[in-house]
Amino acid sequence: MNTVELQGHLDIALKAMDEIHRAVTLTLDAGFDVEEKIDSSLVTTADLEGEKAFRKFIAKAYPDHGIIGEEFPPENSHSDYQWIVDPIDGTAEFARGLPTYGSIVALHYKNEPVVGVMDHPQLNIRAWAAKGLGAFKNKSKQTIQNDAKLNHQRLAVAAKENFQRLGDESKIFDQLTTKFPHVRVFHSCFSHTCALIDGVDVTVDWNVNLWDMAATKILIEEAGGKYQILKQREHPEKGTLYCTAFGKSPLVDEIAALVESAGEA
Amino acid sequence: MNTVELQGHLDIALKAMDEIHRAVTLTLDAGFDVEEKIDSSLVTTADLEGEKAFRKFIAKAYPDHGIIGEEFPPENSHSDYQWIVDPIDGTAEFARGLPTYGSIVALHYKNEPVVGVMDHPQLNIRAWAAKGLGAFKNKSKQTIQNDAKLNHQRLAVAAKENFQRLGDESKIFDQLTTKFPHVRVFHSCFSHTCALIDGVDVTVDWNVNLWDMAATKILIEEAGGKYQILKQREHPEKGTLYCTAFGKSPLVDEIAALVESAGEA
Repeated sequence: MNTVELQGHLDIALKAMDEIHRAVTLTLDAGFDVEEKIDSSLVTTADLEGEKAFRKFIAKAYPDHGIIGEEFPPENSHSDYQWIVDPIDGTAEFARGLPTYGSIVALHYKNEPVVGVMDHPQLNIRAWAAKGLGAFKNKSKQTIQNDAKLNHQRLAVAAKENFQRLGDESKIFDQLTTKFPHVRVFHSCFSHTCALIDGVDVTVDWNVNLWDMAATKILIEEAGGKYQILKQREHPEKGTLYCTAFGKSPLVDEIAALVESAGEA
Repeated sequence: MNTVELQGHLDIALKAMDEIHRAVTLTLDAGFDVEEKIDSSLVTTADLEGEKAFRKFIAKAYPDHGIIGEEFPPENSHSDYQWIVDPIDGTAEFARGLPTYGSIVALHYKNEPVVGVMDHPQLNIRAWAAKGLGAFKNKSKQTIQNDAKLNHQRLAVAAKENFQRLGDESKIFDQLTTKFPHVRVFHSCFSHTCALIDGVDVTVDWNVNLWDMAATKILIEEAGGKYQILKQREHPEKGTLYCTAFGKSPLVDEIAALVESAGEA
């Protein structure tokens, strides 16, 4: 895929994000309903409207491309091009009035992410990247400093509940927070953005779906950081779940070693 | 203290917060320096300028009142009226470009908080309260629902590092996150605001100073929630440190019991 083509896909991804933003804001202003799904996660009318707006926009721009989203069935599953969307990542945050939720859009080509966008409308942070074109936050190029020696290395990690979705791996959460006591626990998307923009040094996410992680690899790698899948497993209701670490390369390696030894213990 | 007097103090507190906001924003736009203090916490020129602006404003409005702040020595220590300020709570967040820091202002009269303001300029959230006048977020009255039965009770808690400041109490962090696996770890001020605005059900902060907690009691109690000091101890460098729980009353009681039994174990 050449640079012109990639830039074209990135432009579409950014415009598709604008569509989500518009639909979510309209629903937010009009008032929204919250429901609990079978897997006990939440969905609001804003999630549904956001994903519908995205699907409509992509289907018009690229009628042959596939679409995978949290709230509706996949389309064009056999295409090499798959657009992946999570209209509101952190729905529980959104539903409770916290501004730390975000929206995720990515284009995967032959299962490899080539474009990624994460947007936090209430934080005025939008991050994006495309293969070979770099990673940006609000138009400023992002570089992850892999050799930075910080006094207090900071970890962002998923909630302990994430570590209880496939057996009880709470011990890994306890060990991670002991190794990195300067810890923050945010929801997926915001913790991913933090790793990109140097808000934290490394992020560990645990037992999350494809759409939660879809933009992260390209964002982190284009900024020069390391992205590693630590575990990939099947959940009876939630489908394939991913455990990942990403950010400054030496810390990702430390965490991979910690997780491996915790598994053997 | 009558209602008119309280309203007057609240008005001054809100204007003083505007002064902090202005000074911090100016410094932010101009670029700021970060230094590490003796206790290894950070200070930026924005903290210093914010506190100076606050002190100047209060000294003009109430020349006889006391002022206690993180960055400069106390003034008028013998006054019944003590203004307490933390110009940037979450300096490490601020210094790393995260929008989740906040500013804290409170008036204590005879050691009891009577006015409190917490401001998150980049989140567009300002919360305030005064004794008998209610608690508000951006002009909307806040009420903590003590009997709300939520499917996933959510805890905000300080980082594990906070639990290591006076001996190693990491076990309490581990037990809290096991009891409330739907946990978030934010910095003080934002986690306090979350308890007020129903972003979480209960917050536990650990080994923090007077200025970190100065506005919280009045905000939570005026919203009908419960505020409890769990421990109050002296640190050789940091001075008096407080451990507190606040939010929905039954959860504060549960946490107090958990902390007590952890102390005996």
